[in-house]
Amino acid sequence: SGLVLVKNPHLDLMEEDVLYHLDLGTKTHNLPAMFGDIKFVCVGGSPRRMRAFAQFMQRELGLAGAGEDVADVCAGSDRYAMYRAGPVLSVSHGMGIPSISIMLHELIKLLHHAKCRDVTIIRIGTSGGLGIEAGSVVITDTAVDSSFQPRFEQVVLDDVVVRSTELDKELAEELLACSRDIPDFPTLIGHTMCTYDFYEGQGRLDGALCSFSSEKKLEYLRRAYEAGVRNIEMESTAFAALCGLCGLKGESCSFHLL
Amino acid sequence: SGLVLVKNPHLDLMEEDVLYHLDLGTKTHNLPAMFGDIKFVCVGGSPRRMRAFAQFMQRELGLAGAGEDVADVCAGSDRYAMYRAGPVLSVSHGMGIPSISIMLHELIKLLHHAKCRDVTIIRIGTSGGLGIEAGSVVITDTAVDSSFQPRFEQVVLDDVVVRSTELDKELAEELLACSRDIPDFPTLIGHTMCTYDFYEGQGRLDGALCSFSSEKKLEYLRRAYEAGVRNIEMESTAFAALCGLCGLKGESCSFHLL
Repeated sequence: SGLVLVKNPHLDLMEEDVLYHLDLGTKTHNLPAMFGDIKFVCVGGSPRRMRAFAQFMQRELGLAGAGEDVADVCAGSDRYAMYRAGPVLSVSHGMGIPSISIMLHELIKLLHHAKCRDVTIIRIGTSGGLGIEAGSVVITDTAVDSSFQPRFEQVVLDDVVVRSTELDKELAEELLACSRDIPDFPTLIGHTMCTYDFYEGQGRLDGALCSFSSEKKLEYLRRAYEAGVRNIEMESTAFAALCGLCGLKGESCSFHLL
Repeated sequence: SGLVLVKNPHLDLMEEDVLYHLDLGTKTHNLPAMFGDIKFVCVGGSPRRMRAFAQFMQRELGLAGAGEDVADVCAGSDRYAMYRAGPVLSVSHGMGIPSISIMLHELIKLLHHAKCRDVTIIRIGTSGGLGIEAGSVVITDTAVDSSFQPRFEQVVLDDVVVRSTELDKELAEELLACSRDIPDFPTLIGHTMCTYDFYEGQGRLDGALCSFSSEKKLEYLRRAYEAGVRNIEMESTAFAALCGLCGLKGESCSFHLL
């Protein structure tokens, strides 16, 4: 049917679903009217960047109001920012798995309540590259954890639930094909490693509060590269797991900064 | 000496330390002049709340400019917000362990570079209470993980480093004594459980994307209460572990919303 699956039967029995961190809700907002025609959701860490992306999409799609400012749909909350540009929703998720998990929970329920169909969700974030040219974009085929395994472990009460982190291979190929139309836009498909920390978790010798040996770091990164990892960020495993859980076509593309 | 300990000898050999997510750095900013007199740092998730707190502190301390707007020291970054009110720094940390970890790494290095002495750091956040009156404040003696253990596991490259999550007991008692001066301000000392997720991790039957039994949830929360847990949030173990690692006097106080 193309609808978003929510595997919590309790949800449809509730009188009201408050999407607290988005400052939206099923009683306070007409979600089907506001969002029913959304076909693409792009998510990224920084609120300012997601606003700039919505403005870019307005211009690209030749929408009325292009060039003007866009309104934050979640202005009543300072946890996340959300902007619309025609059928495209642009949402910030902050940094790290817990932050993106809260946003995705509420966003996916929003798409469910709004009865959206055939939605594609793409993370457009930044990452650190591994053995690739600066300025490259990595399209993730599979997100892996810090042991290079394609899994996301979610503690649900005191159980550890293990979920798959494979992303949509067809969509990855489609995005790669798009990149070929743009000159000087190095793009590749590879695994993305997702860590719980930026400094210690990614072995930043120059930034961490603890110290560790640079030899050990190089040996670890070499093993990561051999396992197919081409970039490192902090949200992809949770993103892939939640898209998979809810039958959403999802892809993660990360821009490798210097 | 009261200085902030940074256990990475590499740090003092670097020509420049860029505190990227705070938009500050040792070459671009005179950190001792800007922050050398800071004695208290209060951190919390929401940037708007941390601005309101700085304005409140300006009034409480009778500082010049009280009642006026305060400037965001990190205005060049949209990752975190930082405000000053005399010797008090008020900083947002976003939601979840990875987000607070990035901020604390850069904040603690900032305090180190600025040669601050005898700094007290207090998290003033929100949480869900467990068997306590709504509107209560829980002062955390020990932060515990979802197995009720006083530990924080940090993956450093492929090692799991386990750190203690005890907070400053003397400071906890001092804060409790302060609360007694304020009428109708229910305050208690207890353990705080820190989870990696808001919906599934805290068993929100009415909000999660997966389903689970309410009996199992009640049984789990009962065990948590018996283990001394009085509230649940998403940052305290990392906060306690990093304060402990760097010799910072730290405490976490969380307001239990409805």
